[in-house]
Amino acid sequence: MGAVAPEAIGIDGVDAAIEPYVRDAVATLDDRAPLLGEMACHHLGYGQANLGQTAADRRDRGKRMRPAIALLAAGAAGGRPEAAAPLAAAVELLHNFTLVHDDVQDQSPTRRHRPTVWSLWGIGQAINAGDALFAAAHLPLYTLPERGISPALTLRLLAAFDRMTIAIVAGQTLDLGFEGRPDVSSADYLTMIAGKTAAIVRFAAWAGARLGGASDDAVACWAEFGQALGLGFQIRDDLLGIWGAAETTGKAAADDIRRRKQTLPVLLLRERLDATDRDELARIFAAADVDAARVERVLALLDRERVREAVEIEIARYHDRAAAALRDAAGPGPNPSRDRLAALVDRLATRAG
Amino acid sequence: MGAVAPEAIGIDGVDAAIEPYVRDAVATLDDRAPLLGEMACHHLGYGQANLGQTAADRRDRGKRMRPAIALLAAGAAGGRPEAAAPLAAAVELLHNFTLVHDDVQDQSPTRRHRPTVWSLWGIGQAINAGDALFAAAHLPLYTLPERGISPALTLRLLAAFDRMTIAIVAGQTLDLGFEGRPDVSSADYLTMIAGKTAAIVRFAAWAGARLGGASDDAVACWAEFGQALGLGFQIRDDLLGIWGAAETTGKAAADDIRRRKQTLPVLLLRERLDATDRDELARIFAAADVDAARVERVLALLDRERVREAVEIEIARYHDRAAAALRDAAGPGPNPSRDRLAALVDRLATRAG
Repeated sequence: MGAVAPEAIGIDGVDAAIEPYVRDAVATLDDRAPLLGEMACHHLGYGQANLGQTAADRRDRGKRMRPAIALLAAGAAGGRPEAAAPLAAAVELLHNFTLVHDDVQDQSPTRRHRPTVWSLWGIGQAINAGDALFAAAHLPLYTLPERGISPALTLRLLAAFDRMTIAIVAGQTLDLGFEGRPDVSSADYLTMIAGKTAAIVRFAAWAGARLGGASDDAVACWAEFGQALGLGFQIRDDLLGIWGAAETTGKAAADDIRRRKQTLPVLLLRERLDATDRDELARIFAAADVDAARVERVLALLDRERVREAVEIEIARYHDRAAAALRDAAGPGPNPSRDRLAALVDRLATRAG
Repeated sequence: MGAVAPEAIGIDGVDAAIEPYVRDAVATLDDRAPLLGEMACHHLGYGQANLGQTAADRRDRGKRMRPAIALLAAGAAGGRPEAAAPLAAAVELLHNFTLVHDDVQDQSPTRRHRPTVWSLWGIGQAINAGDALFAAAHLPLYTLPERGISPALTLRLLAAFDRMTIAIVAGQTLDLGFEGRPDVSSADYLTMIAGKTAAIVRFAAWAGARLGGASDDAVACWAEFGQALGLGFQIRDDLLGIWGAAETTGKAAADDIRRRKQTLPVLLLRERLDATDRDELARIFAAADVDAARVERVLALLDRERVREAVEIEIARYHDRAAAALRDAAGPGPNPSRDRLAALVDRLATRAG
């Protein structure tokens, strides 16, 4: 793999950095059971048995946000971005393991414009595909000592990687437990997304900076940066789930209301309603089906209680916290990787899809 | 934890050695999401929020065969058995992760005389419980450097641990893929159980011996020992699934025929039948339900083709291979851990349940 300039870290740059590791991981699965390799390739968006395909026929592989953060944090901390390439690959593989299992849990039929693994191969094999991706996600990290990282630091990163995974799974456990409960608070919700969404972003920033040579003080700022970025990202996602335009999100408008998801806007709304309106909201969310009139009613309540404005304020708060932590972490002076991260923070906080 | 004498490594000795690590792992899950801790405790057979219960109220926690092998291999290789305690805990936690997901895949209602995790908390949460146990299974291994193991050796063991997990999951993938297929050969089957069952036993013996100070030559023999033991164990299981007495196995007699499982006896039978009888067998296994008369017919065919004798020969072959590898690995001279392993080999090869 050649050197990756920070300027080049768009999706293509990230792909170039992580591809050798992703390819090795998938090959390891394929060697043992061809179906495992096939499921992994399908989910990851690599042509079957054709990992080296050209950009033209490349399938949707997701936003690659997490590996980009790992690479740029290494660059912004003073190292070369590619020093974090094995880490970036591990983070991306891990994220994809969680998606395969999430799709089973949510019974989602499509992901990245393709049928989900469980919908093609069944729940049992999808569980296997996720388990194998999780195991394989560790493999890139074992190559770090070949790149001059000490075994002791490699072990620290691995231990943090597994603890971060426990945080993700715990968040997912809390999330499934919220379904149908009328007493979930916005504080409960923040605890849940701190695990489910923010933990991996926090880890990517922290571990990337560590590999880029950041000091102990600086890595704490990097963790804070990733945490705030991840929380803001999820809350923006929640906002788009209700007020996002169908064209940009790829979902129907107000889809999260129709699916009775307890995201931050709904929880803030519940906290603002009087007992009568709160009962009405509970009845709407307890019904098997939320019809168009009920969706309109919830949208009207959200409007009346100015919930969207409150959510925008939360997003701005996490955006500012992430931006400040980034300044503390990377310091002043010319730093192209830091500037790209700052641009990413701005883009994620205002994205429409 | 006090010193564990090799003589003490029955179930209680294994429990004493691994309990601090299992407790820490479960506490880590519990901290993040209490339901994760609850599911893990239930599955592992620890009283809820009562990890330090007495032997009298202890629940069934399984045979503890894998951690016992790790501890005894360390002892037999010249170290102290407890040097392998973190490894033994990791192996046992990993095994339990696979059981939680297997129970979902097989839709098994009970395990160790308790309802399975998925049957109590649903498939989604059972997937989470397994994922979290898998992540947590790594944690004991990160304590090895505190016990004087070099970070470099710790990394080697971790990498082998994840590769072994891929082998297990690949075996499970092959196994699910066999269902309903009329062309599975006994060779396919051996490849499958080499992953699904033998890989973890092989790893436990190999890594335990490594921690006990075995040489590079000796660890290869230890791996061979674990592999042969694991294969023989699974084939004995297959034999008991057809000819085992209900009292000792806890399953109905001929249960595997009723459940149309493609285990070694059935595959050997198919390979021995002429086309007419093979078609009849295929029809029996293609039906939704195998009634008593059909079970009797399959048992009669197995009897006529002397399949049980062939299976017993296979078991004896793996038993002898394991015993020989153990002699090569541990050498002559007084060695109580080796003697206990030899006794374990004999017991597993002739067990009735």
